[in-house]
Amino acid sequence: MPRGTFRALHRVAFQGEPGAFSEQAALAFYRNRIRTKPLHSFSDVFKSVKDCTADVGIIPIENSLYGSIHQNYDLLQRYDLKIIGEVKLRVVHCLLSLPGVHLREVKRIYSHPQAIAQCEEFLNRLKKVDIVPAYDTAGAAKMISDRHERNSAAIASLQAARVYKLKVLKRNLESDRKNYTRFLILGRKEVRPKRNAKTSVIFAAKNIPGALFRALGVFALRDINLIKIESRPIAGKPWEYLFYLDFGGSRHDQVSRRAIHHLTELATSVKILGSYEQGVTIDA
Amino acid sequence: MPRGTFRALHRVAFQGEPGAFSEQAALAFYRNRIRTKPLHSFSDVFKSVKDCTADVGIIPIENSLYGSIHQNYDLLQRYDLKIIGEVKLRVVHCLLSLPGVHLREVKRIYSHPQAIAQCEEFLNRLKKVDIVPAYDTAGAAKMISDRHERNSAAIASLQAARVYKLKVLKRNLESDRKNYTRFLILGRKEVRPKRNAKTSVIFAAKNIPGALFRALGVFALRDINLIKIESRPIAGKPWEYLFYLDFGGSRHDQVSRRAIHHLTELATSVKILGSYEQGVTIDA
Repeated sequence: MPRGTFRALHRVAFQGEPGAFSEQAALAFYRNRIRTKPLHSFSDVFKSVKDCTADVGIIPIENSLYGSIHQNYDLLQRYDLKIIGEVKLRVVHCLLSLPGVHLREVKRIYSHPQAIAQCEEFLNRLKKVDIVPAYDTAGAAKMISDRHERNSAAIASLQAARVYKLKVLKRNLESDRKNYTRFLILGRKEVRPKRNAKTSVIFAAKNIPGALFRALGVFALRDINLIKIESRPIAGKPWEYLFYLDFGGSRHDQVSRRAIHHLTELATSVKILGSYEQGVTIDA
Repeated sequence: MPRGTFRALHRVAFQGEPGAFSEQAALAFYRNRIRTKPLHSFSDVFKSVKDCTADVGIIPIENSLYGSIHQNYDLLQRYDLKIIGEVKLRVVHCLLSLPGVHLREVKRIYSHPQAIAQCEEFLNRLKKVDIVPAYDTAGAAKMISDRHERNSAAIASLQAARVYKLKVLKRNLESDRKNYTRFLILGRKEVRPKRNAKTSVIFAAKNIPGALFRALGVFALRDINLIKIESRPIAGKPWEYLFYLDFGGSRHDQVSRRAIHHLTELATSVKILGSYEQGVTIDA
């Protein structure tokens, strides 16, 4: 995928308000050479790529503290999109206000409950400040800008500060610095990764003892590194599961191709989500 | 655990309002010979068992359509409670109103968004009825009873109808009948299951290729049936995971004991959550 062609073409769909962490991850992945398209829901992101109203989409798939975003795993199964890239973003929370406001003037802080929880230590040190839950971190920043609230601040991303022209009163509010979100880039056509390849597949194991063990053997016995495994229920088949596997290698390599072929012998279904370059970690 | 002793002693903590599905599952498991204790959050349920303000607790762990309730997996790791039983409840949604109300008089229906989604086909057939989201199915039933709302109904459990003395206008509203929730019973002391034993363990695999494959081999090579595997992130170690395994057998059997011993050789940590009888499915 030649990076030069993004310039005029690429419109990247994401879920959330402008300034959301997903938008920041997309801009970092494409080095700002894209236009972004905010949408209401994750399934809207999948739909817009499928319907060609966006060129690609970006979705969060996993947070290093909270785990997988299962809704997006289910959408990967439902839609026939390809994973074409990955990016890992360190979650950096900033306190944002209107320009000219000082921290001591802030009487109210808006943010998403998860962001509030992640900044608990910082918030506990403040005195006489109301903490107000909002539906979205970027939405909280937008509200302050729209309503021109002088005595309020929002906990949101640096990208939200840029979008809403807010002042960064303080950054790195998060208690745990090891807080990363992994995002996937989705397209309509598969790509051929050049280096550090990773492949994602979904399979249903046969309902017999040892089925998962044998399926993992396909990779272990070929010294293919298993990066992640996730299980999801199968609707209509209570207590049966689909498995999502990420392994090291490209489906275009001979050893991975043979492993996938071997997996189809052992599984009742196999779906290849794509091979792509493993994401670098971006410190926002 | 002799069932006769529950009669006077057992106080079972659950999350939600009286009439919640968790309460219904607890009453079914203990054949009504318990007192129940409604609490605000899942962690309150764990705390109350730990602090002896309840004898046992009940938590939902998995729904056959939506997957695992990850917060409860994380709490199982954090608290040192034992799993002492399991029960599977088919989720049956009922339309509840004040006594004497007819379906045609209902102008407003309250329920939790997930219950509303599960009854979509039924709700789409109704005309001129407002659908209003509520924080809880049993809470919606409680509200109708408390406020004595005549033109409203709630989608909730049969147990909620009993608790709030509401009329069941219609039952089996759910579009998908194969909708089950699996609950775990938590105590302070482990039990010895007599038949159909199942054991739950948590382990951290070594960070080397093939580690999970080898760990599963512990069970597969002894013909022990793996029932479920779930992975959860480890805080402070981005992209490393804890694995939760359910396998057939009791830790008091020789073969399972050997398997667990073998697992400790291959894993960096192993925690046994308990052996218990596999739950029967209750059709509410």
